[in-house]
Amino acid sequence: MADKFVYCFGRGSAEGNADMKNLLGGKGANLAEMTNLGVPVPAGFTISTEVCKLYYDNNRQYPGHLWDEVLENLKKVETAMGHKFGDQNNPLLVSVRSGARISMPGMMDTVLNLGLNDDTIQGVIKQSGNERFAYDSYRRFVQMYGDVVLGVGHDKFEKLLEAKKESRQAKSDTDLDARALKELVKEYKQLVAKETGSQFPDDPFEQLRKAIGAVFESWDTERAVTYRKIHNIPGHWGTAVNVQSMVFGNLGNDSGTGVAFTRDPSNGNKIFFGEYLLNAQGEDVVAGTRTPQPINKAQKKDNGGVSLEESMPEVYNELVGVYQNLEKHYKEMQDIEFTIQQGTLYLLQTRTGKRTAASAVKIAVDMVKEGLIDKKTAIMRVSPAQLDQLLHPTIDPKASVKAVAKGLPASPGAAVGRVVFSAEHAVLEAEMGHAVILVRNETSPEDIAGMYAAKGILTARGGMTSHAAVVARGMGKCCVAGCGAIRVSEEEKIFTVGDQVVKEGDFITLNGTTGQVILGKVALVQPELSGDFGILMEWVDEFKTLKVRTNADLPADAAIARKFGAEGIGLCRTEHMFFGEERLPIVQQMILADNKEARLEALAKLLPFQRGDFYGIFKAMAGLPVTIRHLDPPLHEFLPNREELIEKITEIKVTLKYISDEKEINRLKSQLHEHENLLHKVQSLHEFNPMLGHRGCRLGITYPEIYDMQTQAIIEAACQLAQEGQVVEPEIMIPLVGTVEELKTTKAAAIKVAESVMAKQGIKIKYSIGTMIEVPRAALTADAIAKEAEFFSFGTNDLTQMTFGFSRDDAGVFLPGYVEKGLLPEDPFVALDQVGVGLLVQMAVAKGRAVNPALKIGICGEHGGEPSSVEFCHRSGLNYVSCSPYRVPIARLAAAQARIKEKASVKQELD
Amino acid sequence: MADKFVYCFGRGSAEGNADMKNLLGGKGANLAEMTNLGVPVPAGFTISTEVCKLYYDNNRQYPGHLWDEVLENLKKVETAMGHKFGDQNNPLLVSVRSGARISMPGMMDTVLNLGLNDDTIQGVIKQSGNERFAYDSYRRFVQMYGDVVLGVGHDKFEKLLEAKKESRQAKSDTDLDARALKELVKEYKQLVAKETGSQFPDDPFEQLRKAIGAVFESWDTERAVTYRKIHNIPGHWGTAVNVQSMVFGNLGNDSGTGVAFTRDPSNGNKIFFGEYLLNAQGEDVVAGTRTPQPINKAQKKDNGGVSLEESMPEVYNELVGVYQNLEKHYKEMQDIEFTIQQGTLYLLQTRTGKRTAASAVKIAVDMVKEGLIDKKTAIMRVSPAQLDQLLHPTIDPKASVKAVAKGLPASPGAAVGRVVFSAEHAVLEAEMGHAVILVRNETSPEDIAGMYAAKGILTARGGMTSHAAVVARGMGKCCVAGCGAIRVSEEEKIFTVGDQVVKEGDFITLNGTTGQVILGKVALVQPELSGDFGILMEWVDEFKTLKVRTNADLPADAAIARKFGAEGIGLCRTEHMFFGEERLPIVQQMILADNKEARLEALAKLLPFQRGDFYGIFKAMAGLPVTIRHLDPPLHEFLPNREELIEKITEIKVTLKYISDEKEINRLKSQLHEHENLLHKVQSLHEFNPMLGHRGCRLGITYPEIYDMQTQAIIEAACQLAQEGQVVEPEIMIPLVGTVEELKTTKAAAIKVAESVMAKQGIKIKYSIGTMIEVPRAALTADAIAKEAEFFSFGTNDLTQMTFGFSRDDAGVFLPGYVEKGLLPEDPFVALDQVGVGLLVQMAVAKGRAVNPALKIGICGEHGGEPSSVEFCHRSGLNYVSCSPYRVPIARLAAAQARIKEKASVKQELD
Repeated sequence: MADKFVYCFGRGSAEGNADMKNLLGGKGANLAEMTNLGVPVPAGFTISTEVCKLYYDNNRQYPGHLWDEVLENLKKVETAMGHKFGDQNNPLLVSVRSGARISMPGMMDTVLNLGLNDDTIQGVIKQSGNERFAYDSYRRFVQMYGDVVLGVGHDKFEKLLEAKKESRQAKSDTDLDARALKELVKEYKQLVAKETGSQFPDDPFEQLRKAIGAVFESWDTERAVTYRKIHNIPGHWGTAVNVQSMVFGNLGNDSGTGVAFTRDPSNGNKIFFGEYLLNAQGEDVVAGTRTPQPINKAQKKDNGGVSLEESMPEVYNELVGVYQNLEKHYKEMQDIEFTIQQGTLYLLQTRTGKRTAASAVKIAVDMVKEGLIDKKTAIMRVSPAQLDQLLHPTIDPKASVKAVAKGLPASPGAAVGRVVFSAEHAVLEAEMGHAVILVRNETSPEDIAGMYAAKGILTARGGMTSHAAVVARGMGKCCVAGCGAIRVSEEEKIFTVGDQVVKEGDFITLNGTTGQVILGKVALVQPELSGDFGILMEWVDEFKTLKVRTNADLPADAAIARKFGAEGIGLCRTEHMFFGEERLPIVQQMILADNKEARLEALAKLLPFQRGDFYGIFKAMAGLPVTIRHLDPPLHEFLPNREELIEKITEIKVTLKYISDEKEINRLKSQLHEHENLLHKVQSLHEFNPMLGHRGCRLGITYPEIYDMQTQAIIEAACQLAQEGQVVEPEIMIPLVGTVEELKTTKAAAIKVAESVMAKQGIKIKYSIGTMIEVPRAALTADAIAKEAEFFSFGTNDLTQMTFGFSRDDAGVFLPGYVEKGLLPEDPFVALDQVGVGLLVQMAVAKGRAVNPALKIGICGEHGGEPSSVEFCHRSGLNYVSCSPYRVPIARLAAAQARIKEKASVKQELD
Repeated sequence: MADKFVYCFGRGSAEGNADMKNLLGGKGANLAEMTNLGVPVPAGFTISTEVCKLYYDNNRQYPGHLWDEVLENLKKVETAMGHKFGDQNNPLLVSVRSGARISMPGMMDTVLNLGLNDDTIQGVIKQSGNERFAYDSYRRFVQMYGDVVLGVGHDKFEKLLEAKKESRQAKSDTDLDARALKELVKEYKQLVAKETGSQFPDDPFEQLRKAIGAVFESWDTERAVTYRKIHNIPGHWGTAVNVQSMVFGNLGNDSGTGVAFTRDPSNGNKIFFGEYLLNAQGEDVVAGTRTPQPINKAQKKDNGGVSLEESMPEVYNELVGVYQNLEKHYKEMQDIEFTIQQGTLYLLQTRTGKRTAASAVKIAVDMVKEGLIDKKTAIMRVSPAQLDQLLHPTIDPKASVKAVAKGLPASPGAAVGRVVFSAEHAVLEAEMGHAVILVRNETSPEDIAGMYAAKGILTARGGMTSHAAVVARGMGKCCVAGCGAIRVSEEEKIFTVGDQVVKEGDFITLNGTTGQVILGKVALVQPELSGDFGILMEWVDEFKTLKVRTNADLPADAAIARKFGAEGIGLCRTEHMFFGEERLPIVQQMILADNKEARLEALAKLLPFQRGDFYGIFKAMAGLPVTIRHLDPPLHEFLPNREELIEKITEIKVTLKYISDEKEINRLKSQLHEHENLLHKVQSLHEFNPMLGHRGCRLGITYPEIYDMQTQAIIEAACQLAQEGQVVEPEIMIPLVGTVEELKTTKAAAIKVAESVMAKQGIKIKYSIGTMIEVPRAALTADAIAKEAEFFSFGTNDLTQMTFGFSRDDAGVFLPGYVEKGLLPEDPFVALDQVGVGLLVQMAVAKGRAVNPALKIGICGEHGGEPSSVEFCHRSGLNYVSCSPYRVPIARLAAAQARIKEKASVKQELD
């Protein structure tokens, strides 16, 4: 243990640096770093974390010479700043703050303006020429100190403040004059004396000693201990204490304060960008009571005013030097805060600046060009989640927006359009060239055409992986789902939200990125993929090893995904093809067939449609692998709604009791008969839990002819393409396999059909057969299954449903509450649950590869486009992820980042 | 490899024995064993399996001296039997059969009467004095040999036989006289010559050589290879060939044949029990053309006749010696076949005799008393599955029964009663003292009272773990479920099966053990638990280490289970208590409550009911642990049916269009309003997949007040009992936990309530809090969960549903087909899927115990009473299984057997 406890910084040199976070805490180390860089930082010193350790190890005793060291360093600060602590003419005021290795917000409040008393205030009044400011600072100091150091409740001070305002008929704090504030200081001190039994300490040195002690004590409060427990922070780390001189930007017109970015955060342009106010404190900028001025002439165009560049050219030049220095040092765009005290520039803080997605991309690419950072660093600088902004229209940031309701941000982007309540209507309106928003209680596969026609989708029910959400994301279409605040009456063609009624044809705007629902039209900004985006994505591909495919059911979607860099199709859902206007009746005919012959007849009619679909997809993806999943949903999804049939039948039955027109009676009777027959079939296919019902390969085993037709269509389409000289690798994927025997049976059937088609056509194409791993049992028995499968594709939507026992259509009732109460860190349908579901994934990978090292493994659940899940997939050794077209770039970036992180951690281990 | 290939047996000594199965095959070794025991067995010899191996290893060549060895041994057989092979005066006839290590039925047919030709037949005619018999034997031999050895299709012979019968106007084979049969032999031989191009071999030695060759060849047929693949029998095992002299029981009145059991198989009494026929062959006994006679005087009471004891006292006495010898040797009740050829007794076969459950128990207990076997062996001798027969009424075996339909054997036993179609009606009829069978499409929790009132339950839909099945088993009530052949119209109060219509009030009989549905009344036999049963169960408890608890929701069930030896309650489902007539309205009031206050008000009314329930259960189980599960099902289960509400509303709406009576209009309008409000709530609680919905602890987290009320009721009831001086250990079980946070939250709430109740009452009781493991994620993260749980209870019903992704209410559509097609070895809702679901169980046990070695672990799914699953639970280290009351003895026996098997296998490993 060192015998040095206090580390000074100021006037261009510091005893610490950024690498000494363990000893000086994060804040202390950074203040030292800035100082060493030659950045003008208000002088101060840091009492090391070792003191905290010694304090607790030695029965709450400080090391003997600590106070001497503090006094010694205080002297250095006085020299550096040209003020004297406790001096009544030229007083030095300081702030006292805690600072652990990593930031622990809320652990201990800051004490500002320490050093004030009835004597030193005179010096402040004299130097500032502003008595009110001086007493306001004094009153704030007593309140803060009383609360934080002496433990007198904040609310007790506030009560006195309120009483004072009342007695002076002051509306806000700022209406209180210097006299009132002076009285308040007195009253505050009386309060402290009453509450603590001791006088408020007037001696600045006593103030300082006690404040330092309070910080160290705060390390052991229940609040802090709990916080550390939650965040796994060891108690023996301890906290440092930072004592820093106060500077004021409101000491006259040679003073001021401002904030600036080293580059323009809205577009990333390499322009120094910021605002400032003369004779003001930081809070004045924030409060908005005065309009800040542009920092330099370049920004003056619109808003006039006098820039800092003009008002204080020397200070401005110094600031330019500082920001360039900082950006070069941190190799990152910085967000800085500065104060000018009587012509002297001080930097109070520098940190990484927040930015829009577009500027993040531009800055990263520019910095590589400038030689500031390498490609890897550039890739790590762009957040994949943020990238979404670049790919969809967004609400114009300049528009003023008032949302009337908020649902789940189910599919990003924004959309404006007239409200429609049915898929048919959506199609009609779209054909007339109108932009429409489809509003439904929930969507079902029958609504696909309408969803495709609409600009956006709004549903009252359903979660992040409800039908509406999944399909909308697949289409890259804006969607707000599960918006419980709206009541939709599809019958009356209205929806209400609170008292407001929205009728069909009214305009609304949706923000699928935030979940906001806005009445009326709001201006949108169209996405623009800059050249920088392309450059960054090229670099991404240099690093990533995980392939990125897309989930696409239509040639158009496949083409978009390919444009976004998709390396194949990981999931083509054949069922979406069954809902076309010409097809649904044939599908229903197939389902209602009483015997195999009738079913085969209907299937023969479907074959050319399916072949055409696959041909289109294959053509769009020529040269790349395409995974086609055999029919998955239960058959009743293709039949009319059960409740509606019951309603219709009851309606006819009751009507028949009352009418006498024979012709009408006959008409109704024959209708009734038809409905009843249909209902009988619907009832017989009805399931209590369709999620766990007769679907996936269970259908293919009960009705092998359905899968046979699909295999035939796939292989015929691939052969056709081969004849045209284009190569495609169809991968036939069997859904919902839970036992190896299911795969064996369906695989044998598929091979038989495929070989027969190829023999007939005299063409050999490469194809493979694999399975979804989406039933927990498949993951548990992956070793057996891998012997029969050429590839695995994790269907993590269903796997999540079954592993948690959550129905994604129903979980909306309790899942948001779970996340809110901390029962789950995140919605497991959004970010893969790595602990539970992830364990099954890892088991399946290990078991599968153990018996079949050549096994190709991917994921085609919604998680394939979510960054943390993509990283998990990379770590778990998957070959590819597959996601909706608009998430392909996000997945690519996440994959590259995962690879870079992994390499870094391997390097760290080797170092 | 030995240079001895043929092993002789006969005349009291054999070269082989029972331990030489690998070399001689099962049949050969057993024939040798019997011979060595001094049992008179027709002499013969076995050609070893090594010959088979050599044959295939050496390009289908036999070892050089094989035939010499065969001839040598044939001589020994001639000597032993006093006949000569191929001799025309005193011919020896033999049978040739295959015989592998383990029986492979259907691999190769037997050739009987080998050695017959136009010369030797004369000897047979002379010795038997029965020309027709001789030619019938001859014609059978040619047919059998032609088919099996020469490969001429069986049907071709049959055609000739049919033609012969037609030409002679014979109705059956027996109507053909010796001449016709003689002609047939000739025609058969012509057929063979035509089909094979060679004459039928008349030389007995050629016949024998070819027959032996055919047996060895049969080892390599496609049929045999497939069979071995399916049953994992290595190809290199090979088969042996048994050549044995034929004996005939129809050579006059000093000959005969019979079958006998060493004890009475119907009741286990120690009485030699059997039947015989003079001057007859085995097939005459089977064909039933003549009535067999009792074997001894003791059996003569009813059916007169002359017993073997009387007709051939010496032979009978010899037979008695033989059977006693056999039973003593095999230490098991034997089922023997014998033939008497001209005064000489031959044993043809001995094997373990089949028996009823009652006799299995009696024989096992008796044999221990007789010192024949030890207790362990006795326990292993009774099949747990069979035990079920002892605990329920069964259909009188004497009754002639014709089933009209067959459903799933959902709950064992039999029941007779009048058909009713509603639970209310069942209750009314039962109150009037009528026995009723409740017939429904499917049952729901609202039907509980009616199910309780009925003698048996029949449903058209649902599987082995449908509501009807589970509840019926819990009540020990006969149930046939998922009987697809019946169409139930609850409205019209009829069900139809084919053309037959069964009306309310008609009698039917159900056999829940087989799934049979029988029209009318059938006589039943009531179960009787003998003293032997009690003795066996006492021994069982000496061996088993796995505890057996029961699933019981009512004090009466708990009492029955305790009588059956239950060591506590492993699952008390509180929801069944919510359906009582007085309670359901309060439960609905609670669910429909718009706010917490209203909900609390309803819960306060439920509290005394629940407390009373628990008090009753605790009292019945005083001294034992009782696990009570907090509310599990989704709330909509307690509300009216959605479809019915829709129907009612539509009905009123349409009616309102047509009527004009104002009073009626007002009445209907107010009704409509009420229904619509209710429907609104029902719709809002409606779930697409209720299995995966808002249920279990998810409810307890959304509405903590429900679980709080239940905890309060549990602890108050336990305190009350404690005050009365009785001890109970309540175990509070949280259902459907998937994350440790869920358990933490609900556990903290339960502790708070429990401590507050105990503080209030001034009583301390011991209670514990644990969780179901029924969600796959709970098993996967059992290490985290075990830190918070005092016990785990595997809910293998739900765990099976989620691990397979099978809804047990819907799987009936495809699951039977899966088992039929071999995609699954068994219904996983009946026998635990050890490969998949079992892996999760074992992971959870290992992970749970790793962090919490004191963790108590049980199972409370339906599998807890299924023998193979109980064995799995024992092997997996569980502390207890819990099952429905009537399965407690079965589980106890299975647990003891599991323990004994385990010890045996450990011993084997150590040996």
